[in-house]
Amino acid sequence: MTRSLELHPDRLFPADPTTRGLARELYGAVKDLPIVSPHGHTDPRWFADDAPFADPVSLLLAPDHYLFRMLYSQGVALSDLGVPDRSGPSAADPRAAWRLFAAHQPLFRGTPSALWLEHVFAAVFGFTERLTEATADHYFDRIAEALATPAFRPRALFDRFGIEVLATTESPVDTLDHHQAIQASAWAKASKGRVITAYRPDAVIDAEHEQFPHALRRFGDLTGEDVTSWSGYLAAHRKRRADFIAVGATSTDHGHPTAATADLAAVDAERLFAAIVSGRATAAEAELFRAQMLTEMARMSLDDGLVMQIHPGSFRNHNRPLFESHGRDKGADIPMPTDYVRSLKPLLDRFGADPRLTLILFTLDETAYSRELAPLAGHYPCLRLGPAWWFHDSPEGMRRFREMTTETAGFYNTVGFNDDTRAFLSIPARHDMARRIDCGYLARLVAEHRLPLDEARDTAVDLAYRLAKRAYKL
Amino acid sequence: MTRSLELHPDRLFPADPTTRGLARELYGAVKDLPIVSPHGHTDPRWFADDAPFADPVSLLLAPDHYLFRMLYSQGVALSDLGVPDRSGPSAADPRAAWRLFAAHQPLFRGTPSALWLEHVFAAVFGFTERLTEATADHYFDRIAEALATPAFRPRALFDRFGIEVLATTESPVDTLDHHQAIQASAWAKASKGRVITAYRPDAVIDAEHEQFPHALRRFGDLTGEDVTSWSGYLAAHRKRRADFIAVGATSTDHGHPTAATADLAAVDAERLFAAIVSGRATAAEAELFRAQMLTEMARMSLDDGLVMQIHPGSFRNHNRPLFESHGRDKGADIPMPTDYVRSLKPLLDRFGADPRLTLILFTLDETAYSRELAPLAGHYPCLRLGPAWWFHDSPEGMRRFREMTTETAGFYNTVGFNDDTRAFLSIPARHDMARRIDCGYLARLVAEHRLPLDEARDTAVDLAYRLAKRAYKL
Amino acid sequence: MTRSLELHPDRLFPADPTTRGLARELYGAVKDLPIVSPHGHTDPRWFADDAPFADPVSLLLAPDHYLFRMLYSQGVALSDLGVPDRSGPSAADPRAAWRLFAAHQPLFRGTPSALWLEHVFAAVFGFTERLTEATADHYFDRIAEALATPAFRPRALFDRFGIEVLATTESPVDTLDHHQAIQASAWAKASKGRVITAYRPDAVIDAEHEQFPHALRRFGDLTGEDVTSWSGYLAAHRKRRADFIAVGATSTDHGHPTAATADLAAVDAERLFAAIVSGRATAAEAELFRAQMLTEMARMSLDDGLVMQIHPGSFRNHNRPLFESHGRDKGADIPMPTDYVRSLKPLLDRFGADPRLTLILFTLDETAYSRELAPLAGHYPCLRLGPAWWFHDSPEGMRRFREMTTETAGFYNTVGFNDDTRAFLSIPARHDMARRIDCGYLARLVAEHRLPLDEARDTAVDLAYRLAKRAYKL
Repeated sequence: MTRSLELHPDRLFPADPTTRGLARELYGAVKDLPIVSPHGHTDPRWFADDAPFADPVSLLLAPDHYLFRMLYSQGVALSDLGVPDRSGPSAADPRAAWRLFAAHQPLFRGTPSALWLEHVFAAVFGFTERLTEATADHYFDRIAEALATPAFRPRALFDRFGIEVLATTESPVDTLDHHQAIQASAWAKASKGRVITAYRPDAVIDAEHEQFPHALRRFGDLTGEDVTSWSGYLAAHRKRRADFIAVGATSTDHGHPTAATADLAAVDAERLFAAIVSGRATAAEAELFRAQMLTEMARMSLDDGLVMQIHPGSFRNHNRPLFESHGRDKGADIPMPTDYVRSLKPLLDRFGADPRLTLILFTLDETAYSRELAPLAGHYPCLRLGPAWWFHDSPEGMRRFREMTTETAGFYNTVGFNDDTRAFLSIPARHDMARRIDCGYLARLVAEHRLPLDEARDTAVDLAYRLAKRAYKL
Repeated sequence: MTRSLELHPDRLFPADPTTRGLARELYGAVKDLPIVSPHGHTDPRWFADDAPFADPVSLLLAPDHYLFRMLYSQGVALSDLGVPDRSGPSAADPRAAWRLFAAHQPLFRGTPSALWLEHVFAAVFGFTERLTEATADHYFDRIAEALATPAFRPRALFDRFGIEVLATTESPVDTLDHHQAIQASAWAKASKGRVITAYRPDAVIDAEHEQFPHALRRFGDLTGEDVTSWSGYLAAHRKRRADFIAVGATSTDHGHPTAATADLAAVDAERLFAAIVSGRATAAEAELFRAQMLTEMARMSLDDGLVMQIHPGSFRNHNRPLFESHGRDKGADIPMPTDYVRSLKPLLDRFGADPRLTLILFTLDETAYSRELAPLAGHYPCLRLGPAWWFHDSPEGMRRFREMTTETAGFYNTVGFNDDTRAFLSIPARHDMARRIDCGYLARLVAEHRLPLDEARDTAVDLAYRLAKRAYKL
Repeated sequence: MTRSLELHPDRLFPADPTTRGLARELYGAVKDLPIVSPHGHTDPRWFADDAPFADPVSLLLAPDHYLFRMLYSQGVALSDLGVPDRSGPSAADPRAAWRLFAAHQPLFRGTPSALWLEHVFAAVFGFTERLTEATADHYFDRIAEALATPAFRPRALFDRFGIEVLATTESPVDTLDHHQAIQASAWAKASKGRVITAYRPDAVIDAEHEQFPHALRRFGDLTGEDVTSWSGYLAAHRKRRADFIAVGATSTDHGHPTAATADLAAVDAERLFAAIVSGRATAAEAELFRAQMLTEMARMSLDDGLVMQIHPGSFRNHNRPLFESHGRDKGADIPMPTDYVRSLKPLLDRFGADPRLTLILFTLDETAYSRELAPLAGHYPCLRLGPAWWFHDSPEGMRRFREMTTETAGFYNTVGFNDDTRAFLSIPARHDMARRIDCGYLARLVAEHRLPLDEARDTAVDLAYRLAKRAYKL
């Protein structure tokens, strides 16, 4: 049986007819707004080189941990899905991997992955039948064909998607070559959109990362600073932040295990850094150093204006055998309870009311929304709440985010949507989902006479577009 | 453009027409019931003196931390809003403060503050246009005019609001002069309502409060007891509880950082008290003393019948620089995870099944609703659950409270609504919101055939009126 | 006034007409499916002896802690409700106990107990009026009459209920006589259903249980192994697992205070066991032993194929005076915050991707659903999520379970429904409730165009029937 695929115009709106009608009206005001993507993980090389994407599996499946983790959870081997391991690229035949993926589509029922995929399949590639075992080859061939055409090159898709700004995320030891190439390109001048970077210094801050000594050396090489001294190390950060700003960066990002911050006396910070550099730091010292560095980054932001983001609370690489065989980012990161109240106090006591600082908080622990994050963001001038993140970047997750933060923090201590993705083709799908869920939430407020319609319409535009530009200084 | 303000008769009801019709019917049975307000923070001086309220800002804005915290979070200085600091009253021009408040109204979209304000503006003052920058002066002038009239004096508003009982909250070192003046007034005899007090002894129990030594001395002076001895200290509590009962108190209230209780042997309690009185108690001793005092208060309640309330889990004065410049209660209190299971066990093992004790529990940690509080209240005879509190006293917060407690604790281990407010004019708005949300929840149960309509109607009256009277012995 | 009792065909479906219509359609596909009950606490003696149930109170009230805990919470003495204490059976007159229960029916408004009872009263006994004080005697007499008839014997009810499999739960020191008698009976051959057991070894694993030394001795007697040696103790488990498998067991179950697991070196495990057997183990050693035994049980499952279940997180017997007077399981078990991320890592690092292991996780801490359990189950091949458990086995609880797990773990890392009950007559009511709530959730996904109707129908059958059979290998 052929099972048809279509994107229903009312998808993701509440079923109640009054509320749905209002949601439709609000959505009408935002659906065609440009995409502002201030935080994500696409590869700048795509836009620098503008080479065609290789094949359906390496574009859509192998890099998407949302997809392969679900198949892995049901016993499918990662090596059969085209996912590389520590010994190198997967030897799997792309077509066989794609068939395996197609055969397991029921696993994604009720997940945002299913909705993003359908959007990509229907809106980007024009499919009208659902992906099943029976249509797997049809999909594979048609996608492969499309990718070979100019219209499916990275820059063409970028323009077609209506992206106004797309931020990638680079390490301080990245040369920024790709961003410089983009900046110098004729496309950058012609396009309505911009590709910018963001400063993610975890690699040179987290002494527990196995690559830390190597990254630190490279950090010194790139900056010409003596990064084994505390003052040289801080100077290197300042230099690289300036380099990142030169290719468009407006923000930093910090993916620490916890949200801990510290505000040590200079002499103590210097002594701690010496322990870190020695390679003999304890786990507690590594944690304290990460904590201190958040406060140092905030201090630098007062000068150079970079907006800070903290993404804490993930237990990375939880599956030890898989980490040993396949390395990082293989869908084995698990959220942990995350404290903000005591953790952020040192930084907030220092800079919480400084108008030069914007600090955007994320969480994987939804219990913090109403208990900690909304009360904090509804008080401290520097704080804003990032959108529902990662596992919670989903219809129910986004709905809970609004329901649990709005009443205490309002809409205006939030920052609009982040797609936070490496799945480039899904960017329009993700922003569309966020816009629909937010419009559905606003529609409920209007239907329940909790917000006038004109204010809801204005707020919808803020959530879809203006707040992201304002918070991230775009 | 003039934007009209009206209180829609169906506000806060679910949008589904069947459910809304049921909610409307249930609400019809409760909307005109008298207001029972067994816990709050209005100033008894208002009802003792019956002096006119001074101006819109000092009545509506400067004392309301829900409002000024939101403005502060977006960079507005508290001093510009009429909020006093440690050096004294704000020098801000009330009209300028009001204009600033009016200009920032969009911050409140989607918050309960917006709904409470609209109710006050429309139902108390009769405004028909929304508060905006354009109408700020109109609002200021009209409110100021109204406040100068007899109909807007505290006692007149109290009677107009249909309040049957209003409890304020006083410290053991309060003289109770205002309550005595109210009791002696002709108004007290003529009014259908009553103003009573409640016993909140934190000031003489919390050794970590900076005013503790001063409060303890005054506690001794007022009671004539030697409050430096354990037996004298307990006798002083018994005396003051009797004094409070004489001006109507039926309850005590305890705002501790945690819900910890202890049940020490008498000799250990005495030794602990000696450490407290010495002024050299450690943080652990201060915590243990608070814990022990909850059990002592419960023991006294067996004799004098005062209902206990515990409001735990707030990290007070989180913003250190603001605390240093402006003092307490400036919107910088942040909830923390709160344990009840281990914390309450010592007290419950002692008095949990004693029919003479009622202990009402509150939380700022919504995760405790279904995990700890409903199971505890659905078992222990002494326990009842207070309504959704503070940040959670909101449409979504109240809805979550019912959804997460009812199935385990039922409705009859809860105690109806508390407005818990110092914003006197918002009391009808707050009770109306609670009644509407509860009727909406009951309507959903009826619509889903989970509760017969006749039982829902009876329950609605219990939640709006009878349960508060019964639980607080009013 | 007579108040009629009827089971509305649309009960528990969302009120929105479109969604309700879809729910009705989906429910049509599952309502008559056989009941698969892979985990519960009915008494195998009932089916072995097939003796009539004694009376309404000893069948419906006295063994149901959901019911008597609610009455106790409002001051009703357990002894008046027919609940036994440590001195023996209750002396309460059953009719008087029943009247007391009837008079307190309003306490159950809004609870699943009310819905289960109504289903039992209407569907099993045919009542058409609600249970009230006025109808208490009518109910008592009619139920007593019915229980005396052949149609209300355990086996007849089992067949009438359409049960395909019913698992009870036995201790390793149970002789399994009842299960052997059932297996040998003519009824077992004639019935379409099966009664099987499950292996719950807590009694011989938990050194903190007061009966542990006694149980351990009996464990040795029953198996003929030297259970004071580590190897003999493990051999005894293997033998008894085989005995349980012989009477149909396909699973083990572990009700530990936490989800802690350990993976000790053999020599350390042996040394720990010696401490346990000595009777002088510390609390930390007892916890570590429970943790190690989960990993040992997993290791045995690789060989014998038994599916593991972990039910952690209950603070048992919280009410000390009640425990002293009445013993265990008197409605005084309170959930605690429960960690899975660090707790399960040792076991998962060892066996997490082994295709021979199925490990089903339960929780009483709903905060773990979206934060820990769905991410874990959406990654590890061995993991599956058990349904909403105990206090959360309720309409709102089941709805939250789906809303907070599906988007990350999908439907296919869950295992369908468990009734987990000792209230035999409520089994159809409980499965019906679960089917209705799941169909309501799926209907919402369809109405919001998040899942095609044909896939929802297929999923509904999986959730109601197939997933339980597959996960539990039935």
